[in-house]
Amino acid sequence: MPYYNDLREFIELLEEKNKLLRIKSEVVRETQVGPLYWLQYRGLPEAECKPLLFENVVDVKGRKLGRVLLGAHAPSRGIAALGMMCPPEEMNEKWVHAVSHPVEPEMVASGPVHEVVIAGGELDKLGLEMLAAPNEVPGFSGTIRTTQQFITKDPETGIRNVGAYSGHPNSRRSLRWGISPAHHGYISWTKCRRKGIRLQVAVVIGVTPNIALTASSPLPYDTDELAIAGGIAGEPVRLVKCKTVDLEVPATAEIVIEGEVSNEYIEPHTAFADYPGYVYESEGSLSPVIDVSCITHRKDPMFVATLVGYPPHEAARLSEIAGELEIYRHLKYECGLPVLDVALPACGGGLNYCVIKIKKTSPWQPWQVLNALMGYEAGIGKIAIAVDEDIDPRDPEAVNWALAFAMQPHRDTRIVTHRVPALDPSAYPPGAPAGERRFPSPSGASALLIDATRKWAYTPVGLPKKEFMEQALEIWKKEGLPQLQLRTPWYGYHLGRWTADDEENAELTLKGEHFKLAEKLKGRRKKLS
Amino acid sequence: MPYYNDLREFIELLEEKNKLLRIKSEVVRETQVGPLYWLQYRGLPEAECKPLLFENVVDVKGRKLGRVLLGAHAPSRGIAALGMMCPPEEMNEKWVHAVSHPVEPEMVASGPVHEVVIAGGELDKLGLEMLAAPNEVPGFSGTIRTTQQFITKDPETGIRNVGAYSGHPNSRRSLRWGISPAHHGYISWTKCRRKGIRLQVAVVIGVTPNIALTASSPLPYDTDELAIAGGIAGEPVRLVKCKTVDLEVPATAEIVIEGEVSNEYIEPHTAFADYPGYVYESEGSLSPVIDVSCITHRKDPMFVATLVGYPPHEAARLSEIAGELEIYRHLKYECGLPVLDVALPACGGGLNYCVIKIKKTSPWQPWQVLNALMGYEAGIGKIAIAVDEDIDPRDPEAVNWALAFAMQPHRDTRIVTHRVPALDPSAYPPGAPAGERRFPSPSGASALLIDATRKWAYTPVGLPKKEFMEQALEIWKKEGLPQLQLRTPWYGYHLGRWTADDEENAELTLKGEHFKLAEKLKGRRKKLS
Repeated sequence: MPYYNDLREFIELLEEKNKLLRIKSEVVRETQVGPLYWLQYRGLPEAECKPLLFENVVDVKGRKLGRVLLGAHAPSRGIAALGMMCPPEEMNEKWVHAVSHPVEPEMVASGPVHEVVIAGGELDKLGLEMLAAPNEVPGFSGTIRTTQQFITKDPETGIRNVGAYSGHPNSRRSLRWGISPAHHGYISWTKCRRKGIRLQVAVVIGVTPNIALTASSPLPYDTDELAIAGGIAGEPVRLVKCKTVDLEVPATAEIVIEGEVSNEYIEPHTAFADYPGYVYESEGSLSPVIDVSCITHRKDPMFVATLVGYPPHEAARLSEIAGELEIYRHLKYECGLPVLDVALPACGGGLNYCVIKIKKTSPWQPWQVLNALMGYEAGIGKIAIAVDEDIDPRDPEAVNWALAFAMQPHRDTRIVTHRVPALDPSAYPPGAPAGERRFPSPSGASALLIDATRKWAYTPVGLPKKEFMEQALEIWKKEGLPQLQLRTPWYGYHLGRWTADDEENAELTLKGEHFKLAEKLKGRRKKLS
Repeated sequence: MPYYNDLREFIELLEEKNKLLRIKSEVVRETQVGPLYWLQYRGLPEAECKPLLFENVVDVKGRKLGRVLLGAHAPSRGIAALGMMCPPEEMNEKWVHAVSHPVEPEMVASGPVHEVVIAGGELDKLGLEMLAAPNEVPGFSGTIRTTQQFITKDPETGIRNVGAYSGHPNSRRSLRWGISPAHHGYISWTKCRRKGIRLQVAVVIGVTPNIALTASSPLPYDTDELAIAGGIAGEPVRLVKCKTVDLEVPATAEIVIEGEVSNEYIEPHTAFADYPGYVYESEGSLSPVIDVSCITHRKDPMFVATLVGYPPHEAARLSEIAGELEIYRHLKYECGLPVLDVALPACGGGLNYCVIKIKKTSPWQPWQVLNALMGYEAGIGKIAIAVDEDIDPRDPEAVNWALAFAMQPHRDTRIVTHRVPALDPSAYPPGAPAGERRFPSPSGASALLIDATRKWAYTPVGLPKKEFMEQALEIWKKEGLPQLQLRTPWYGYHLGRWTADDEENAELTLKGEHFKLAEKLKGRRKKLS
C-alpha cells in the first residue's frame, strides 16, 4: 500500500474512520481557536481525541483566514499509529526498521506547494499576515505561534536537518525563531555565523505524518530526518527545489516560508506556553529572527498548527511518541538491553517522566537500563522507572501499583545529580540568570531512578483466571450491561510462586468443596496454650 | 432528612438514580459472581462503577442461594458520598463533625434482622451453607469469603469494636476469622484469652453505608464505630440484642452470625486475594476460628460482600475513603496543619500511596505534613507526596505533573526506614518467617516522601484564561461535538509571577496587534558581533 501522498489524504482517511472533528462556525483565531483545542484534551480520554478542522477562521478584526487544522498527527496514540501505517504495538519495531533502512528523498520537478508563489515586493501586500496562526493560550500568550517543521542544512556537511520549532510572525516578512542553543537548527546557525554566512531556512506547514514524527524525534545531529521519514513510508519523500533558498521541501506541503536567519541581531521573545504546562515569561532568552524571502502554498491551503501547553495535548503526545521510539531503539539495539517498551507520559511533557518496561532475566538489568537512560541524554527521565513486562507503562495506575508493591525506597531508588533542567521551573527560581537556567549551581538538576520490578517470584495477581473472566464477559454482554474498555490486567496470572497445595485448594473451591477443604486444614491446626 | 433505615432503602435510592446494575441470569457463585464483579473495575472508569445486584445465585451443585449484592458502598466516590448524604467535596468536614459529635446507638425491642432465627441443632441442617458467599478470584482462591462487619467488645472496658474483617465458612457452624494480630478485634481476643474467657462475636452482613464506612476506618481502638456512624447519620443506629451472645447488632441488618472465638486452636488459612492486588498463599499465618451459635436474618436476605484483589475495586475504595477521612481529620485538627485533602488512591491498596493537598504558607509545612503522616501510622504512606492546592490528588496525571515540574529529587525527597510492610510483597521474599514479615531485618520497610509543592512563585498554568475557555465551551456545545468531562485544571491561572509587560503583550495579542507588539520588541534587540 502506498504511503499518504499528502496530509489531505491522511485527514480524509481519518474522517472515513470517524476520527476527525469539524468546526463549521466562524471562529476567531485570537480568542477561540486555541481554547477549542484545549477543551478536548481537558475533557476527553486519550483514545477519543481527534484532529480539529476549523473550516472558517477569522482574525479579531474580521479578516477571513481560511482553514486551520489542529492536532493532526498525534491527538491519540492510535492516530499516530495510523500515521505510521501500523498497529500501535508495532510502532517500536517499525521505527527501528525505518532508522536502519532509511530511504533517501527524491527530487521531483514540481508540486502543489508551488501552486501559489509570493516573493519580493509581493510580500509587502500581505506576507505572513496570510498565516492563520492561532493564539495558543489567550489571555497569557504574548505571541501567535506557528510550530512547524523547519528545514536547514549543516554548512559544512550539507546534511539536512528537519526540526519541530516555532515561528512567531513579527511583520509581513519577518519571523522570530523559537529555538534554543542545544537544538540542531541552532547549532547549524552558529556554524554559519562562524563562517560569516547566513543560514537558509524553509518553514514547512502541513506535512505527512512520517515527516511530523521524525521532525519531533531526538535523532542524532547528522541524520536527515526526511530519509527516516522515507523509511517509515517505505518510499521516498518527494521534494521540490525552493524558489529563493538552496533547500528542498516536500512537494505536497500546504505552505512553505523561505528565508534566511539574520546575523545582525537577536530578539527577546514574548510569553508563550511550553511543554512543562506553564507559560514562560518574556524576560530571559533571546531568539534569532528569520528574514522572509518567499511564501509558497497550495490553493486553499490549510494552516496546520501544533499547540503546546498544559499536558496532555497533541504536541506533547507527538514528542512523547517520537522520544519513546528513539529511546527504545537506543536502549534495545545500541545498548543491547532487554527493553520491551518505553513510555514518556504526557504528564512529564515527554521528557520528565519515563517508564521503561523490561523483561528482566538478571537482578542488575533494571539498573543497567536506568543508568543507560541517564547516559543517553542529560535532560530526559527526571523520574525514571523500570517495570516488569506485565505492567502497562502508559497506564499511570498500573505504574503506581508497581511503585506501591514492587519496590522498597531504601533499596530500589537512587538520585542522580548534574542533570539538565531545560524548562523545568522547579530547578531554578524565576528570573534566574541564563547560566543558572542551563545548569543550576552547584550540581544541576536531578533525577529519581526507581527499580519497580519485582525482586523475587510473586504469588499470582489477585484477579480470577482468564477462563472465568472470559465466561463472565459473555454474561456481561448477554445482560446488556454497560460497554467495557478492559485494561491490562483483566485476569489473574502466575508470577513464579504457587504451591501444589494451593492449586488443589483452588480446585476444591471451584467445585464447591470448601467444607471438604476445611477437613484437610483440621489436621494442620495449632493448639493454643 | 432522616438517614437510610436499611441498606435496601439505600439501594432503592441508587436504582432511582440509575446507579445500580442488576444481573438477572442464574449465575454460579464459585465461578461467575466474582469475575462479573472484577469486569466492571477493569473495564469502566471510576465514576461509572455501580453496585451489582445478582438476583439469582446458585452454587456449582445447582442449589439456589438467593440474592447477592456486591460493591454496595463505594464502587465510586460519588456513591460513597451518597452514603454519607453529602456532596463529595463535603465528605471530609462531615466526617470531622461526626467524630466530634458521635451519636450513641439506641436499643430497640425488635427488628427485621430477627425475622428468622436459626440456633442450636437447627444449625446442622444448613447453617453457614445458607450464605451465598462468592469465590473471590476463581482459579486461585482457596476459600469463599464473607468480608463483613465483625462486632466485638473489649473484655475490660466493654467498649464496642466494629471492624471489617473476613470470615471463611469451615463447616455448617464454624467460621475461620481472617484477621491479623494488629487488628482491634484480635487485640480484644488476646485480652480475653489472657483472662481465660471466650470472645463473643456478631458477624453482621448487610448494613447501612455509615456503618460500612466506620467499620473500615482507622479510628482509635477505644472508639465505638457505631457512635461515629450515628454522627454521620445525625441519628442513632438502632440495635437489637443478639440471641445467643451478649452483643447488640443493627436491627435492620440482612444477616447476623453469632458465635464465640475458640481458645483451643488456630488454623492455617488458604489462599486469598488481598489489598496489594496479589493472591496470598496458604503457607504462613494462622487464624482464629469462630464457633457459631446462631444465625438470624431477614426474610429473603441479600448476601452482601466486599471482594478484595487487584485495585481498584469497591473494597479498596471503601478503605481508601475511610482512611482519607480519618487522616485528614488527624493532620488538620490534631496536628493543626494546613491540609486541604488527603487521597489514598486505589493503586496503593488504600495504604501505600498517599497524596496530601496543602495550602502552603511556609516552606517547612510540606515536610511537617509528611513527617506527621509518618508519625501517624507506621504502615500508611509508603509513597507520600505533598502537593499544592491546585493539584487534584485523585488524578494520577495531575500528581505526576506535580512530580515532573514542581520538585527536584535531590532537594525534595527523603527516604524513611523502620516502617511496617503489612502485606507488601516487595518487603520480604516469599516464604519468609513471620518475624521477617512483620518487620524485615534490619531496618524494616521504607517510605519515599516527596515535597511536590512549588518552591517559589511560578508563571501561569499554560492554558487559556477562564473567560476564553467558557466561550469555547459554548461553541463546542453548539457544534454538537463529543460530550466532555472536564478535568482540573481546564483553564490557566496565575501562580504568583507575571509582569505588567507580559500582561500588556497578552492584551495586544488578543487584539491581533502582534505586529505592533513586535515594534516594541525591536528596541530590545541585541546586536550580534
